[in-house]
Amino acid sequence: MTRLKLGMIGGGQGAFIGAVHRIASRIDDRYELIAGCLSSTEDKALASAKEIGIAPDRSYSDFTTMAKAEALREDGIEVVSIVTPNHMHAQPAIEFLKKGIHVICDKPMTATLDEAQELYNIVKNSEAHFFLTHNYSGYPVVREMRRLVKEGSIGKIRVVKGSYLQGWLAKKEEDNGLKQAEWRTDPSRSGVAGAVGDIGSHTMHLLEFVTNHKLESLAADLSIFVSGRRLDDDASILIRMNNNVRGSLWISQVAVGEENNFKISIYGEKGALHWAQENPNYATLSTHGELDKIITRGGPIHKDSSMANVRIPPGHPEGYLEGFAQIYTDVADVIQESDKATQLLDVLPNADDGLHIMKFINASVQSSNNNSEWVKIN
Amino acid sequence: MTRLKLGMIGGGQGAFIGAVHRIASRIDDRYELIAGCLSSTEDKALASAKEIGIAPDRSYSDFTTMAKAEALREDGIEVVSIVTPNHMHAQPAIEFLKKGIHVICDKPMTATLDEAQELYNIVKNSEAHFFLTHNYSGYPVVREMRRLVKEGSIGKIRVVKGSYLQGWLAKKEEDNGLKQAEWRTDPSRSGVAGAVGDIGSHTMHLLEFVTNHKLESLAADLSIFVSGRRLDDDASILIRMNNNVRGSLWISQVAVGEENNFKISIYGEKGALHWAQENPNYATLSTHGELDKIITRGGPIHKDSSMANVRIPPGHPEGYLEGFAQIYTDVADVIQESDKATQLLDVLPNADDGLHIMKFINASVQSSNNNSEWVKIN
Amino acid sequence: MTRLKLGMIGGGQGAFIGAVHRIASRIDDRYELIAGCLSSTEDKALASAKEIGIAPDRSYSDFTTMAKAEALREDGIEVVSIVTPNHMHAQPAIEFLKKGIHVICDKPMTATLDEAQELYNIVKNSEAHFFLTHNYSGYPVVREMRRLVKEGSIGKIRVVKGSYLQGWLAKKEEDNGLKQAEWRTDPSRSGVAGAVGDIGSHTMHLLEFVTNHKLESLAADLSIFVSGRRLDDDASILIRMNNNVRGSLWISQVAVGEENNFKISIYGEKGALHWAQENPNYATLSTHGELDKIITRGGPIHKDSSMANVRIPPGHPEGYLEGFAQIYTDVADVIQESDKATQLLDVLPNADDGLHIMKFINASVQSSNNNSEWVKIN
Amino acid sequence: MTRLKLGMIGGGQGAFIGAVHRIASRIDDRYELIAGCLSSTEDKALASAKEIGIAPDRSYSDFTTMAKAEALREDGIEVVSIVTPNHMHAQPAIEFLKKGIHVICDKPMTATLDEAQELYNIVKNSEAHFFLTHNYSGYPVVREMRRLVKEGSIGKIRVVKGSYLQGWLAKKEEDNGLKQAEWRTDPSRSGVAGAVGDIGSHTMHLLEFVTNHKLESLAADLSIFVSGRRLDDDASILIRMNNNVRGSLWISQVAVGEENNFKISIYGEKGALHWAQENPNYATLSTHGELDKIITRGGPIHKDSSMANVRIPPGHPEGYLEGFAQIYTDVADVIQESDKATQLLDVLPNADDGLHIMKFINASVQSSNNNSEWVKIN
Repeated sequence: MTRLKLGMIGGGQGAFIGAVHRIASRIDDRYELIAGCLSSTEDKALASAKEIGIAPDRSYSDFTTMAKAEALREDGIEVVSIVTPNHMHAQPAIEFLKKGIHVICDKPMTATLDEAQELYNIVKNSEAHFFLTHNYSGYPVVREMRRLVKEGSIGKIRVVKGSYLQGWLAKKEEDNGLKQAEWRTDPSRSGVAGAVGDIGSHTMHLLEFVTNHKLESLAADLSIFVSGRRLDDDASILIRMNNNVRGSLWISQVAVGEENNFKISIYGEKGALHWAQENPNYATLSTHGELDKIITRGGPIHKDSSMANVRIPPGHPEGYLEGFAQIYTDVADVIQESDKATQLLDVLPNADDGLHIMKFINASVQSSNNNSEWVKIN
Repeated sequence: MTRLKLGMIGGGQGAFIGAVHRIASRIDDRYELIAGCLSSTEDKALASAKEIGIAPDRSYSDFTTMAKAEALREDGIEVVSIVTPNHMHAQPAIEFLKKGIHVICDKPMTATLDEAQELYNIVKNSEAHFFLTHNYSGYPVVREMRRLVKEGSIGKIRVVKGSYLQGWLAKKEEDNGLKQAEWRTDPSRSGVAGAVGDIGSHTMHLLEFVTNHKLESLAADLSIFVSGRRLDDDASILIRMNNNVRGSLWISQVAVGEENNFKISIYGEKGALHWAQENPNYATLSTHGELDKIITRGGPIHKDSSMANVRIPPGHPEGYLEGFAQIYTDVADVIQESDKATQLLDVLPNADDGLHIMKFINASVQSSNNNSEWVKIN
Repeated sequence: MTRLKLGMIGGGQGAFIGAVHRIASRIDDRYELIAGCLSSTEDKALASAKEIGIAPDRSYSDFTTMAKAEALREDGIEVVSIVTPNHMHAQPAIEFLKKGIHVICDKPMTATLDEAQELYNIVKNSEAHFFLTHNYSGYPVVREMRRLVKEGSIGKIRVVKGSYLQGWLAKKEEDNGLKQAEWRTDPSRSGVAGAVGDIGSHTMHLLEFVTNHKLESLAADLSIFVSGRRLDDDASILIRMNNNVRGSLWISQVAVGEENNFKISIYGEKGALHWAQENPNYATLSTHGELDKIITRGGPIHKDSSMANVRIPPGHPEGYLEGFAQIYTDVADVIQESDKATQLLDVLPNADDGLHIMKFINASVQSSNNNSEWVKIN
Repeated sequence: MTRLKLGMIGGGQGAFIGAVHRIASRIDDRYELIAGCLSSTEDKALASAKEIGIAPDRSYSDFTTMAKAEALREDGIEVVSIVTPNHMHAQPAIEFLKKGIHVICDKPMTATLDEAQELYNIVKNSEAHFFLTHNYSGYPVVREMRRLVKEGSIGKIRVVKGSYLQGWLAKKEEDNGLKQAEWRTDPSRSGVAGAVGDIGSHTMHLLEFVTNHKLESLAADLSIFVSGRRLDDDASILIRMNNNVRGSLWISQVAVGEENNFKISIYGEKGALHWAQENPNYATLSTHGELDKIITRGGPIHKDSSMANVRIPPGHPEGYLEGFAQIYTDVADVIQESDKATQLLDVLPNADDGLHIMKFINASVQSSNNNSEWVKIN
């Protein structure tokens, strides 16, 4: 299949989520990133573009210009990724949708509800697609949970619990020059909510995704614990979903010691399902009167493999690929004689290791063939 | 930095590790795969090449021809990945090394010790690099463990324990048409050892990698539990390393229920380190007289970040990238109207989700501002 | 130290918590159970008394009579345990307190707030002690957490989270003859609340115990999921404690698959503490900018051992004693020729095992002394 | 049932396992400890006896005298517990067996194989029972595993793995006045082996207990890591059991950071079972082609409840009883005005807590009845 031509808005030097989007687009080799408005400052946009291999004539510092230009080119982009802070989602999305270019947009949709409504209306009248990277719905085990709920494995749902706890904003990092903290705690860029918008949005989406139920009403207690901060950094929220489902959410960015502790539990009349993001290749299925069962990515339960790419076998957690990539990237650094080359030569498995391990294998066989006698290597 | 021109030997349709190598080469965007000898059957090689975007004139069915041809081209490959079964490692590696092309080779180095020695000699006399994908040494947490050992955090090492347990060969899968099982249990393709060569090799390498000690002697008990199998499917091995380190290994491919349960423990005079591949973003550091500590990928302890790409923040386990990739790939399927498009539209987060979640965020703020009163969505 | 003379109200045949109280009173050998009003039916009281070794003349079927009689005896009880359903706590407690007899009472204090207030006033004017078995505050690791909080290890507390999830009332067990379910779901015996009174009471108490903060206000959403049930079987509760601490509680007895999943987390400005009842010998201490630490029962951190009986070394989880007790009790059954004697002889370690294991030990030494040669047993 | 009259050899002041045996004998109230030879020094024996409530005329300093005297008394002991170091097991056991008194003996059976054989012969010719406290075979979940193996749940067994790792002898504690270390590292009291005798014995016994297979041969590598120590403190052992079962053991008392990390895994043709002593209320059952299942103490799988006392419901881990006991013991300290009384009054749940928690319960109901409005406590 040919690769889709991809553009990107945001994600210049110093950004976090832009790089994640780019890696994600490469893993299955379905996209080719060829254009970008990586910054609104022309020089920075150009430097950032160069760094990631975008040609200078496809680097823009203004997304409106980019949308126009790309729409006119024969080899113009087919899809655009929007990876800017929340307040910069709606306008670029609208510009590209109007040109018939598909949009992949970081979550939450926008900074304000009004913008969201405006964008929503445009999406509904557009031929082009619009998708949000609620990325946790892309995990194979999460999709399997959704299937199990649909199939009735846990019966009618009664109670849902979602907690998303981080500790990285326990101090006033927005005053310490941390870019990620700055815009997230700034109402003009983040919107009306802080933690609730940033990670509460993931929590609510995932509970709805897995249960196929929709939020109907809520009662919330948002707190600001860090003095001088302007948006919530902690929240407890009671929720009610359709079909008489009840539940609650714990959201915090001041939970010291928590890295990205995102967990969901779904309790039905017959069973329950549990998933935790920090060990995402596993879920637990409880069924009334039976032993708890462990669901693994790619393990025996999966019936609907078309729904999720299980790129590597069960037990090789996702992360295996990054370990492999590390070796490849280190090798590239050595070949291209980067500054780290010497240091990397010290850790990269080479012919010495290969020969040595062959001796280990041979000695194992020899020892076992001789009543487990001790065999010397070398 | 420009991408390295990459070729591949093996990894045609139906192979497993070839695809892993390709993804790994793309994650950090340092390679461009442009040539391959993906199969020794011409048609199959061509079909496989087409599928992954290699031009027909860069598809070969004979690695000797490929080495010659690529060495002559101005735009010839700079590196080649060898991802064939063990008995097909040595010869292609030698061919490419002779042409000055760098080699990345799957482990173990070869099928026989003689081949390993021959290849080793050629590597030592070659300008080109030769590396093995002992991929577990690429995990950030594993590299951190190595650093801690070097720094003396656990004192002089006394005991090492390695266990690598899988269950996928508990039945005679080599008779059920499972290609992965066929060559691994065939002495002519795998070499003198089965489980010991396949996964024992990883275990021994990683213990040496983390400890900086070398195996000196061993006493082994290799077993064949599946009737009719020709190579070991289980092994217990006593080991002695230099500097009076002792230990043992548990290796099995008939350990029913185990997916890829690879664990190492290193005990020194002052402390100990533990790592388990199935939850690879964490390790444990014990120090005499202190509380056990949890090391996380990218967490507070890491000092030597140059040694490992921490692409995403702590708490976002490696695997986060694959979740993200899933969304991107699904979007590509929708845009390119694949057969799964309808099904995928059901799971992809779209503008409805976006608007709905914005309402959730707004309602949270509104409720909290009104003494946690219940607020309806819609 | 001489043993305290103990009486018991409730806990006759078919009861659960009475037996737990009795075992608890024996473990450290500080009590002697010599009198009881185990049932209000005379025959049942007598039969129950006989079964547990209480003399017939110290068996009562009326707690008022018992209080009078015991207070008059020279060898009368000094303490009474009240282990009846909630609505039968206040009156017996009052009777015994009036006679100067100390009271150990199961939680919650009473069925209604009015009773609690009445009992409270009497306690305050009594020379005798009154204690509640909020048993989770008796765990060594929990008491250690309290000490750490007091010492400022996690700084000023911001957020607390408590969840207590059980699944045993997911179906209408009160209609299936389950005595434990009957009274707990009956407002006349349990009081105004179901799950909130039964297990929410533990949750709230423990959060206060560990933090030394007091609940100030709450907003609750109680649900009845099982049709026809009269008291809450699930609750989400937002809480605010003094000193601006916020938090929330998840309480459920319809959480299918959960056995007794009781967890607390305390987040402060500098750190956090976590404990889970299902693995109660461990807690986690997070401190800003440091690696997470694992607290174990009796491990290095404990400074104030006077506060908790660490009867067995770290790593021998509480439960070790019950394993040991099993052997002792089985031996008693064999000696006293119970019906199970034959069956038990099959599992009890005996001289054959003893001799065999001695051979194992000797063979290990012999093999190791002979270069790890294989040694036959027998 | 009447209590058995129990005596004890060893277990005086400063001992560890004696107190464990005493608690174990009390938990189910089946024994009454009335005589003892707690030390071979008369004064120490008497002081120790007094401390635990044994009458002075039933305190002995010589086990031969004790055996004679008790055998002659009408109210003499029926059972004796031997809790001395290994070299003092055989002789007292023989004396009591000869008098027809049942023996419960700590493991391993004796210090030397010769003594074991002698004792064995006497047991075989005695009417009295002889049992060893291989206490890990008393855990409900372990007995359930044995039943599952017998029933064929995991098929014919192939491989067993046992590891028992402790770190408390990582330094030369026998020179630091630690009594437990002194005798265990002294060949004259411990026997020919150190770690292998002390904890290897448990490991081997439990593997045999669960599998119903017997050790046939072994090849061992015992090490002494602590300079100057006379007995092994670490061992790796290859084992072969009847019916072609193979496996290996890891035994260590120098594994820094390990408390009492005792684990067993049993792999059969169809499935596998795993248990870890540090979380002993759970086991894992893997079956080929199915999801892994979690076995809990008292959970759905248990069919043969006669084999194990499940004193408390699933999810209340063994240890719950000790938490409860803590409250009871603290109350006794308060009532008997021990030195700790004031301190304990600070932690014991009292009427203030009771009333406060009643207010919490009432407020929860009131808030929920009023649309989750915030309700003040007090």
